[in-house]
Formats: sequence, C-alpha cells, structure tokens
Amino acid sequence: MSRRAYVRPLDLKHGCVDLSHGAGGRAMQQLIDELFAPAFSSAGTSDDIGRGDDGAVLPPLAAGERMVIATDSHVVSPLFFPGGDIGSLAVHGTVNDVAMMGARPLYLSVGFILEEGFALADLARIVASMGAAARAAGVCIVTGDTKVVEQGNGDGVFVNTTGFGALPATRSLSGAYARPGDSILLSGSIGDHGMAIMSKRESLAFDSEIESDSAALHELVAAMLEAVPSSAECGDPDRGLRLLRDPTRGGLASTLNEIALQSDVGIQLQESALSVKPQVAAACEFLGLDPLYVANEGKLLAVCASADAARLLQAMRAHPLGAEATVIGEVVEDAQHFVQMHTRFGGRRNVDWLSGEQLPRIC
Amino acid sequence: MSRRAYVRPLDLKHGCVDLSHGAGGRAMQQLIDELFAPAFSSAGTSDDIGRGDDGAVLPPLAAGERMVIATDSHVVSPLFFPGGDIGSLAVHGTVNDVAMMGARPLYLSVGFILEEGFALADLARIVASMGAAARAAGVCIVTGDTKVVEQGNGDGVFVNTTGFGALPATRSLSGAYARPGDSILLSGSIGDHGMAIMSKRESLAFDSEIESDSAALHELVAAMLEAVPSSAECGDPDRGLRLLRDPTRGGLASTLNEIALQSDVGIQLQESALSVKPQVAAACEFLGLDPLYVANEGKLLAVCASADAARLLQAMRAHPLGAEATVIGEVVEDAQHFVQMHTRFGGRRNVDWLSGEQLPRIC
Repeated sequence: MSRRAYVRPLDLKHGCVDLSHGAGGRAMQQLIDELFAPAFSSAGTSDDIGRGDDGAVLPPLAAGERMVIATDSHVVSPLFFPGGDIGSLAVHGTVNDVAMMGARPLYLSVGFILEEGFALADLARIVASMGAAARAAGVCIVTGDTKVVEQGNGDGVFVNTTGFGALPATRSLSGAYARPGDSILLSGSIGDHGMAIMSKRESLAFDSEIESDSAALHELVAAMLEAVPSSAECGDPDRGLRLLRDPTRGGLASTLNEIALQSDVGIQLQESALSVKPQVAAACEFLGLDPLYVANEGKLLAVCASADAARLLQAMRAHPLGAEATVIGEVVEDAQHFVQMHTRFGGRRNVDWLSGEQLPRIC
Repeated sequence: MSRRAYVRPLDLKHGCVDLSHGAGGRAMQQLIDELFAPAFSSAGTSDDIGRGDDGAVLPPLAAGERMVIATDSHVVSPLFFPGGDIGSLAVHGTVNDVAMMGARPLYLSVGFILEEGFALADLARIVASMGAAARAAGVCIVTGDTKVVEQGNGDGVFVNTTGFGALPATRSLSGAYARPGDSILLSGSIGDHGMAIMSKRESLAFDSEIESDSAALHELVAAMLEAVPSSAECGDPDRGLRLLRDPTRGGLASTLNEIALQSDVGIQLQESALSVKPQVAAACEFLGLDPLYVANEGKLLAVCASADAARLLQAMRAHPLGAEATVIGEVVEDAQHFVQMHTRFGGRRNVDWLSGEQLPRIC
C-alpha cells in the first residue's frame, strides 16, 4: 500500500515527540504504525481487534461470565526505576485491579498523554516494556489513543490503562464482604515499590538496590481461588474468600482502613507478622516514612473465613509471588472502624488513614 | 458511619487540588465522596457498580451481543469553551467512538490527572458537566481513578474516558468496509468545534460566537441503523451501511484518508455539498486554516451502498443532529487511495493527509 510508506521512518534514536504526533494526521499514523503496533502485537488477537477503527469489538465471554473493568492513570516519576518502568507498571497495575475483583484479565486499552520534546527512544523503551508485560500476563492491548501537550504542560509521559476481565457467574469478591472473625493474609513484604521509587528519586545509595515488586498477580489469584473459592461460590457464609486487594497508593494502612469502612468492621493487625526488607526499612527510616503507608505493586491482601485461612496460606506459599505469605491479622467487630496493630513490644497502636501526601507520584 | 465524617468539608469555593488528593488516603476519599460521587450518581446502577472496589462488575449483555470498547484522553485547552467544556467533551467523544462501531453506549470509566493548585470550583464544574452529559446520553460512569501531579507538570486537568457498549450479534461496521460505488454522507457543517476552541484561545471576536458542536451521536446512529442496517445484517453485499466515523482531530480530510487507506479505495468529494457556517469560514480564513482539517465533535460520516443512500439521508435528516445531512461524495477504485475534491469552480483538488500539526490540544 503505497501511501503507508512514509517519506522517512521515525528516528527512534534521536527523534522527539512533537505536537503533530497527537494531531490525528499522518505523523500520528506513523507513530502508531512504526512504534505502537509492533510493540503491542500479540498472537491470538481477533480480527475485530486493532483494525484501525474507533474502538475494538471483544469476543463474547463464556455463558454466565460477567465483564469486570478497572481504570488507572499512571504518572510515576521517575519513568524508569529498579524493577520496572511506567510501561510495565501501567500493565501490572490494571491487570491487578481486574484480578482483585476475582476476574481473569483479558484485554487492556491504553491512552498516552505525551509531552512535546519527549525522546522517542524513551517512548519506544516504555512501549516495548508495556508490550512485554502484557504478553507475559496473557492480556491483549486492543485499542488506544495518543495525545500530545506542549512542552511544560505535561511531564514526559502519562499512561492510562483500562482493563477488562471475565468474572465467573457465581464468583463475588468485595471490600464490603469482610466479617468479624475472618483472617487477613498478605502475600509478602511491604514498601518495596514505594521505596524503589523514592530511593531513585532522592538518589539514595544503599548497600543493595531496592527493587520495585511490580508484578502481575492474576496467576497467584487464580491459584488462591482454586484452593478457596469465594464465599458466594461456597454457598456457606462461614467459608470461602471474601475479598482481595492490592495495597498500592497509601500502602497497607490505607487499604485496611478502606476495607474496615466498606465492611463496617474493625481490624486487628500483628506487627510481628509483617515483613519489611532490611534495605526498605533503612530507606524508610532515613526518609522518615512508615512502611505501612508505602505503596506496593506486586502484593495482595486477602480476607477469608478463618476456617479456610490455612488452606489459603498454603496455596499462596506454593506460588512464587506468595512464597512469603503470612496471616497478618483478623477482622473484629468495631462500629468505629479502627485498624489497630499489636506491636512487637506488646503495645497497641492505631493505624489511621494516611492524612496528607506521603509519597507523590508513586504510580 | 462516624469515620466518614471529615473534619471539614471540601472548600468547593476557594479550595485547590493538592497532592494529597491523589495519595490514596483520606483526602482522596473525601474528593470522591464529596465531589465525584454526587456528580456521577445516576439512577439504574447495579449494586456491583461503584461500591468502592478496584473496579466494577458490569451486568451481562443480552445473548449474542458483544462488548465494544473505545478509549480517549482529553487535553483540550481552554478547559471551558462555547458549547461545552472538557467534561462534556470527554463524555461525548467516547460515547461517539463507541456509537461509530454500531454499538449502544452503556458505561464509562473515568481517569483524572489533576495539577496541584487547580481550583476545586473549576473541577466541580467540570465534573458536574460530565455527570450531566452522561445522564443525558444514558450512560453510567462506573469506575474511576484520580492522580495528582505537581504544579508545572500538568495543565489543570486531563481526562481519560473509556467507553463500553453493546454490539448486536450480527452487526458489523468498519473503516475497512467501503466499496467502490458506495455513497458518503455527512451529518452537517464542518469545523465548528475546532474553531470554537481556536476563537476562544486566540480571543477572536466575531459578530456571532462560534459554538462547539460537541454532542452525543448515539441516538442519531440508532435511527440510521434502524433505517439502514449494516451490510452484514442485510445479507446482501450491495445493500446496507458500511461504516460510521466521527471526523474529530484532523477533521474530515484525515478521516476520509484513513478510510481510503483502510478500505483500499479512493474517494471523490463534492465541495458544493459541504457546509461551513459563515462565522467558521471567516475564522478559518483569518487564521489561515482549512475547515476540511478542523475538528468536529458532533458530526458523523457514513458510507453506505448507493442503493440505500436516499433512505439513510432521510433517516439522518429526521433527527435534530442530522437535520442538515448531505451526500458529500462517493467511493471509487484507486490503488493510490487518493481523496479528491471537485471544487465549486469545476476544478479538482487533492485532499491529502494533514501533515504537521494544525490545531494542538483541540480535544
């Protein structure tokens, strides 16, 4: 097709984003053809997907399955950090939000807001990372959009991803389902992502580099639901998994407070069951941050009926992303919705909502 | 619920967005509770929607229906303009992308990227406008996300909307379906949205203010498909509607060039059939812009088998948003994919892709 041949290919080494790349004309088409399409290509896309129309038609779900959607904009700074970049993070973050609903992630839409002057080489690196993360997670990027703003009105690149997944007919998980007596499990250490970002941003040097835990959790979720189905599926209100959450912005403390509020309960935590890596603890201490409020991007929190806690813990530990899972506390009755922690030293501490901004632009 | 009561309500008159509003803690929860939730509330949401989880569970579609998705980030500047604002535009733009696929728009997700210091009063106005536009279009805002960037790293507010709609089992429309001999119809005048933005941005004063044509087109689309089903539904390749497109960024010229490329055809336009409002024509002349390349946000282009053009035109004209519809040209064979226009003066002119940026941040 002669008119697809652009006069010059994009200069992916020295070129920059300019306003024409968001204008809906030939330059935008070239960016799609030469940069986005190759990176996002994947096997198994249907004919209806990515054929250049205003949107995508998704193949039908299996009978009884419902569609789950979740959306997240990503503004993390810096764009590249130990353990990931804004591209992989944008895939993992939204895949995880879909998975936390109990759904099997299937598709992503992607919206870029680029700043004029941003290096095409960096964009190519981010887009390649997104494509690789999506393929690794088995999700297909089906439609997208690109806008460009003038230099000084953005910050390199912002990425919105919206995720779509299939929820089995009778499965139901929600932050509103926790009940007094339930057990609370966490899949591993806390604070890794937030401190990886902060260490990079503040140019902190520790003996060992802190890596983000950014990861797609849907396979861990599938293994957990295989072992312990949701209470709705069990048909017995005293059994089953109640809810899953990934404690991202605001950290574990904020997620627990949300659950307490949504479920009209209180929460009792055991500090001794929480794990913080030594270099993360050191960085937190240096910056005056509490790891309970620091973002994670590859950890999940589960609440289940106490009768199923042991089985759920076993299933989590059998998966690489849950190898260090522990039972961190229990749900209690509390009309005030307090989250309280039994400290290592035998005391008790209120773990309140994050008030104010601890870590800006962490995701 | 005592802990939902914030110490002080948001100051929607004099307050500003600060970084804490994107931090996942109490301030973000307050923004959701006091600003977003009331504006986006709508009758008829299912229990699964908007209950504070990481995403939303959509009710199942009817048997055989498929889900259509489309995503768009909006960075329009200025945020408020004659005929709309970034909020209503973000709803209309994505509703229209879903409708152009032949689907019935049902749900939207919304992602905000706010700049620190942005006035809460302006945010409230935008959010109210989004809510009103969504209710008017009969779509439900089901899930969302808010991020905040430091002052100087954004520009007030950027809005991503992702839309979901239901496509009947046998319906299929695509930019790849145009065939030589087909008729091309346009629903009204061109250039209104782009020139409304530019006039406001350049502080141009004309005798009459130029208003954006921003509008949700799904009801016009439904009326058109009622009169002329898609070729796939007709079962006769010489009948039916081939495709719908809304000529936004890059204007009518870019949309026609995309179709020519996708369908491997050429296009012949009649300039005499195109309508440009006098004040839009005057503003274009003043700024040296060609209305063929100026964005529209409430117009659609249809390609149908010529045997159905009269019926389709009648259906369009019977709807307020298509009252001034005309047949503007036809599809021809052309391996070069040229879009050519027969001018009013009997000449012929190539209508090429937009090259470079004509109008930045128009949507």
